[in-house]
Amino acid sequence: MSRVYNFSAGPAVLPEEVLKEAADEMLDYKGTGMSVMEMSHRSKAYDTIIKEAEADLRELMNIPDNYKVLFLQGGASQQFAMIPMNLMKNKVADYIVTGQWAKKAFQEASIYGKANKIASSEDETFSYIPDCSDLPVSEDADYVYICENNTIYGTKFHTLPNTKGKTLVSDVSSCFLSEPVDVSKYGIIYGGVQKNIGPAGVVIVIIREDLITEDTLPGTPTMLKYKIHADNDSLYNTPPAYGIYICGKVFKWIKKQGGLEAMKEHNEKKAAILYNFLDESKLFKGTVRKEDRSLMNVPFVTGDAELDAKFVKEAKEAGLENLKGHRTVGGMRASIYNAMPIEGVEKLVEFMKKFEAENC
Amino acid sequence: MSRVYNFSAGPAVLPEEVLKEAADEMLDYKGTGMSVMEMSHRSKAYDTIIKEAEADLRELMNIPDNYKVLFLQGGASQQFAMIPMNLMKNKVADYIVTGQWAKKAFQEASIYGKANKIASSEDETFSYIPDCSDLPVSEDADYVYICENNTIYGTKFHTLPNTKGKTLVSDVSSCFLSEPVDVSKYGIIYGGVQKNIGPAGVVIVIIREDLITEDTLPGTPTMLKYKIHADNDSLYNTPPAYGIYICGKVFKWIKKQGGLEAMKEHNEKKAAILYNFLDESKLFKGTVRKEDRSLMNVPFVTGDAELDAKFVKEAKEAGLENLKGHRTVGGMRASIYNAMPIEGVEKLVEFMKKFEAENC
Repeated sequence: MSRVYNFSAGPAVLPEEVLKEAADEMLDYKGTGMSVMEMSHRSKAYDTIIKEAEADLRELMNIPDNYKVLFLQGGASQQFAMIPMNLMKNKVADYIVTGQWAKKAFQEASIYGKANKIASSEDETFSYIPDCSDLPVSEDADYVYICENNTIYGTKFHTLPNTKGKTLVSDVSSCFLSEPVDVSKYGIIYGGVQKNIGPAGVVIVIIREDLITEDTLPGTPTMLKYKIHADNDSLYNTPPAYGIYICGKVFKWIKKQGGLEAMKEHNEKKAAILYNFLDESKLFKGTVRKEDRSLMNVPFVTGDAELDAKFVKEAKEAGLENLKGHRTVGGMRASIYNAMPIEGVEKLVEFMKKFEAENC
Repeated sequence: MSRVYNFSAGPAVLPEEVLKEAADEMLDYKGTGMSVMEMSHRSKAYDTIIKEAEADLRELMNIPDNYKVLFLQGGASQQFAMIPMNLMKNKVADYIVTGQWAKKAFQEASIYGKANKIASSEDETFSYIPDCSDLPVSEDADYVYICENNTIYGTKFHTLPNTKGKTLVSDVSSCFLSEPVDVSKYGIIYGGVQKNIGPAGVVIVIIREDLITEDTLPGTPTMLKYKIHADNDSLYNTPPAYGIYICGKVFKWIKKQGGLEAMKEHNEKKAAILYNFLDESKLFKGTVRKEDRSLMNVPFVTGDAELDAKFVKEAKEAGLENLKGHRTVGGMRASIYNAMPIEGVEKLVEFMKKFEAENC
């Protein structure tokens, strides 16, 4: 067995320790005589798994008591509909469009009411976060929506927008648990787990209780009502049980690393290694405005598409995988989530230096 | 490590061989240097996994070319909405209500149009399948809906209903791949995989192409449109990738056993052992009309709730797990899906005989 350094944007690298435990428990979870995959979601053993996962997440994020934690299916893409269907009481919502995913969320909301694009960075290929200190927030907006870390473009809101008192809804898929967060500033904070937390197929929604109501838009499917899932502690129907089990292991792993403060320090250290090199490199250049850089996703280019392709190919041969940038940006992208060890980033920069020397 | 015989109704027992392979590949899938959980769903390695899974399923079920195979999320419960949202062009659908799941599907469809209950077996706690040879199928029905195997009540449609030319939609969650099936008789045949195929969090929808249209009900979320998933080969967004990988392994395992003919033989043999004993037992009694018995789920009672509880407790101590019946039926239920070995059923009957001798 030989492991590569996997810079995939998602699904993405998971802690080796977590995978080892999962492998060990695959045929017999803690003496139950069965795999977690084979376990009734109504069994005592599984009840402990999902309750512990929630408790650990609450502890890690310091989630206030008036927030529910829901483990759902369908990814962020399904939340794009679920959010307006549950929250658009006035049928008005404001969207800040900082990338492809925020744009998709905005377009989906337009099916259900008046979605306003109150800011955007599309004019410069989403390479920055707009100034959100004084936006024209709609008076009757049910919420203001952001995608907090933009996986494709490598930007991050380092300051939350001024929503002028309106509920903030944030997709944190690609920065989930990467640093401490003040949950009380949000109405909903949610994300697919397949970047920083677990296997694809689980989306975690942290939602303030007053936003969970019977009063959804007409035609909302039962499975798309927050209230159904909240009332049933995420067990209205069979949940993505194995995925939640892996998430739970990752929560414990993060706790062992020292929690979100420690994760932040670890992530800042890794990102600094890469950004510092990009800032001094003669060949490679970051594509994002400095003050808006993400700690998680680092796009960069040489300026020459052929050279980019050569880099990606040779990096792969050196055990540095999935460095190709998203098709809409081109170039390269290194996703350096929580589980990427510092050695992975060091190896990457070492390789970039070597490549620069050979090709510059 | 010691494995129990797990009679859970779902999530349920999986082939030990499949779990062993998954454990072995957990940290390094076939030399990729990563777990399938960590793999981009757009990677070559994953493309092979999902394509092979589909090809193997097509081969096993002999799926005609004019049917699409979709790997989706949200379970059968989400299909309860997705089906009417996509198929109810006339806003009329007929439901045959043979259990709790068919009833829930019927109720959900009522949100979207006129759902007619054209037959039901609720009068006798769903212990039989109604005669469906000449039902009052609505002239403008967009489809006729059944739940083909009723997990809770242990009944199975051994003859498909006469839909008088209307499209048949069938939930086969608890009999998926348990015997050969003529897919061409259905418009949609679908099921959650967590009973006979894989881990919870994947639902497989086999749908005739002419039913996949742009013309969905107003307000249908993008993620609930069959066309979006069909056009993107189940990769519109990140799929439940690890779950699909396990399903693929189970498909290969079934092929190795000899396909669905062999599965049927195996399942009939197992079921006969249990039903034959129930028919001669002085203590235990099956709850289902004989001609409607399921090969997969076998409910039985002693007629004495205390004795039932004693049986479940002592069986568990003997390594026979999850035999408690559903709360709406009481008594016991043995789910004996594909992956339950014949020895499991033999051990169960042996234990029942011993219990009968001690308590009768």
